[in-house]
Formats: sequence, C-alpha cells, structure tokens
Amino acid sequence: MSTDDPVSDITAGTYRALCKHGYADVTMEDIAAETDKSKSALHYHYDSKHDLLVSFFDGLLESFTDRLDAVEGETAHDRLLDLIDTVLMPPDDDTPDKGFQTAVLEIKAQGPYDDAFRRHLQEHDRTLREYVETHLADGVDSGEFRSDLDVEASADFLVTVFNGAQTRSVAVGRPVEETRETLAAHIDSMIVADGGAE
Amino acid sequence: MSTDDPVSDITAGTYRALCKHGYADVTMEDIAAETDKSKSALHYHYDSKHDLLVSFFDGLLESFTDRLDAVEGETAHDRLLDLIDTVLMPPDDDTPDKGFQTAVLEIKAQGPYDDAFRRHLQEHDRTLREYVETHLADGVDSGEFRSDLDVEASADFLVTVFNGAQTRSVAVGRPVEETRETLAAHIDSMIVADGGAE
Repeated sequence: MSTDDPVSDITAGTYRALCKHGYADVTMEDIAAETDKSKSALHYHYDSKHDLLVSFFDGLLESFTDRLDAVEGETAHDRLLDLIDTVLMPPDDDTPDKGFQTAVLEIKAQGPYDDAFRRHLQEHDRTLREYVETHLADGVDSGEFRSDLDVEASADFLVTVFNGAQTRSVAVGRPVEETRETLAAHIDSMIVADGGAE
Repeated sequence: MSTDDPVSDITAGTYRALCKHGYADVTMEDIAAETDKSKSALHYHYDSKHDLLVSFFDGLLESFTDRLDAVEGETAHDRLLDLIDTVLMPPDDDTPDKGFQTAVLEIKAQGPYDDAFRRHLQEHDRTLREYVETHLADGVDSGEFRSDLDVEASADFLVTVFNGAQTRSVAVGRPVEETRETLAAHIDSMIVADGGAE
C-alpha cells in the first residue's frame, strides 16, 4: 500500500502500526516498518511519535468528514441511517479495524491528559454532531421528522450511542451491528413524525 | 481513609492512586504511598500490579452490585431512573471521580489484550444488563411499561448509552448529566406504556 505520496504512505503505515501495536506500545520504528521510510526519515518529518500521531489524526478527521459528506439517501431518514452505517462500520471491510478502534479508545482515555489529543477528540465529536444535526433538521423541514424534535439534544444523544457502541465493542467484544437495529427502532419511535403512535 | 482492614485499606489506596496517576502510569509505589503499607508489604499480598488491579476490580464489582441492589423507588419507572443516577453519578460527590473514570476507560481499552481485565469488563457489563432487565421486566409485569417491550434489547441499549456517556465525559469533557435528561425522554417515549402516543 506504499505510494509515491510520502504523507499518504506514512498515514497508511501509521494506521497499520496502530492496529498491530496499539497506541501506548507503538514506536516510530513500528511505524517506519509499515512504510517505505527509515526511522530517521520519519524523524525528519516529525519530532516525536506524538507529533506524528497528531498529524495522523488531522488526516483522519479529514477522511472522516469526506465519508460523512458521502452519506446518501433519498430522504433525510435514509441519510440518517446511512450515516449510522458510516460511523459504526469500518471504512473498508478488509481492514483490521478492531485493532484501530482499540487504539482510538486508548487515545480517548488520553483526553484529560493530552491537550492536542483532547482538542482533536472534541473537533471530531463536534463534527459528527453537526452532521447528525443537519440530517435531523432536514427531516424536520421535510415533515419526515417530528416538528417538535429537539434537534440538538437528539443529535447529541445519537453521538453518545455511537461512542457507547464503539466502547463496548472494544471492551467486551459486543458487535456494533447490534446497536444499529436498536438505533433504527429508536429513530422510528423518537424521531420519525408518526413514530411511536401505534 | 486508612482502616484496620488491610484489604479495604489497599482498595481505598488503589482507588486514590488510579485517580491520580491513571492505569498505565500507576506503580506499586504510588499505591503503597496511598495506604499505610510499604511497597514490599503490597508485594507480599500481590505478585504484581496486574494481580493487585484484578483483585481491586473484583472488589469494585462487588461494591457496584451493592449499589445496584440499593436502587429504590415505588414504581419500576422510579427504580429505573434511580439506577441511571447510580450508574452515571459518582458513588460519592467528594471523590475525584473523573480521574477514576479515566482509569476505567484505559482499562476498557485493554479488553482485547488482557484476558483477566476482559473477563472482568464482561462480568461488569452482564451484571449491569441483568439489573436493567429486572427493572424493565418488573415494569412490563406491572403494566407501567409497554407489554411488547423487547426487554433484552432495551436493557442492552441502555448499557450502550451508559458506556457512551462515560466515554464522552472522559474523552471530550461532556458532562454525563446531559445524558440523564435525554435518557429520561427516551424512556418515556420508548419504554413507558403510553409513551410517545401524544
């Protein structure tokens, strides 16, 4: 997966190294081993593992935003369900995503200690909330969703559910797929205009 | 907070040391410093930091179960809301619970790597689900909750929401209190017998 672009080569290598070794244990050497760079070439680009990871997460937020932009569907309801799949499912079924989700959870646990990571996590959290809000507001406008829906609180709740599904997947091995089903029912009952009336 | 009981002295000391230093960085020395034991006395009781922490988490599950047993309320609905407070709020407002929640999240991220921790996390997850299921089933029996409620799926969803609230509190500093409000609305609409009908 090495390419001519040094940044995307380092990004892909960092991803693979995090999947294999986790955040706490991964070294610049592990990352170099997953790219066509030497360890000293990596140090030419980045002062430290921390610098490299912060830059890696910048790129990650960008590609996450691209994936959220690619969400599609005829109705706001369809787009909301497609967003849920985008967030809960790995970007590519071939990738060893479980290892990566574990590294992400390790980094979430660094939030209180590490300013750069926390700012990143907050930006990621805010971006996701805003995309969810957009689909919810679209659905209220089109009459698909309840006119009295608290768009902000509902979006915030959905982001909490995403976080919970990801945490339990890592911590206790519970498949995220199971959350999708319950989320769809939650949306039908709490959010869809005539939901819960039966 | 040192007591005559060596186990509860070590438990309280481990709690304080985890709050201060986090899971990855805490040492036997840090824990000893929070008890009236020497580091070598700790090593007499426990072979390693890992052993000590596994035993600490045994005790933690026990006290968590005690707190779930203490949940009260006249109706199943009241008891469910009291359980939510019990789970999302710290056991004691004076404790520096944020640090402890962070250590717990670090340990959740160890789930895939550490068999003893994962078994613990799974036991904790299962216990919580079972208590939630009991209150939901009580409410179905009493007619408070929908007769067609999928008790197992609803309990599982609530546990996912708890995990999400705890993760976001640590990662991005979002107060767990905000989840309680939305959860109460979710319960009124999805779970309570005539919910969502208005």
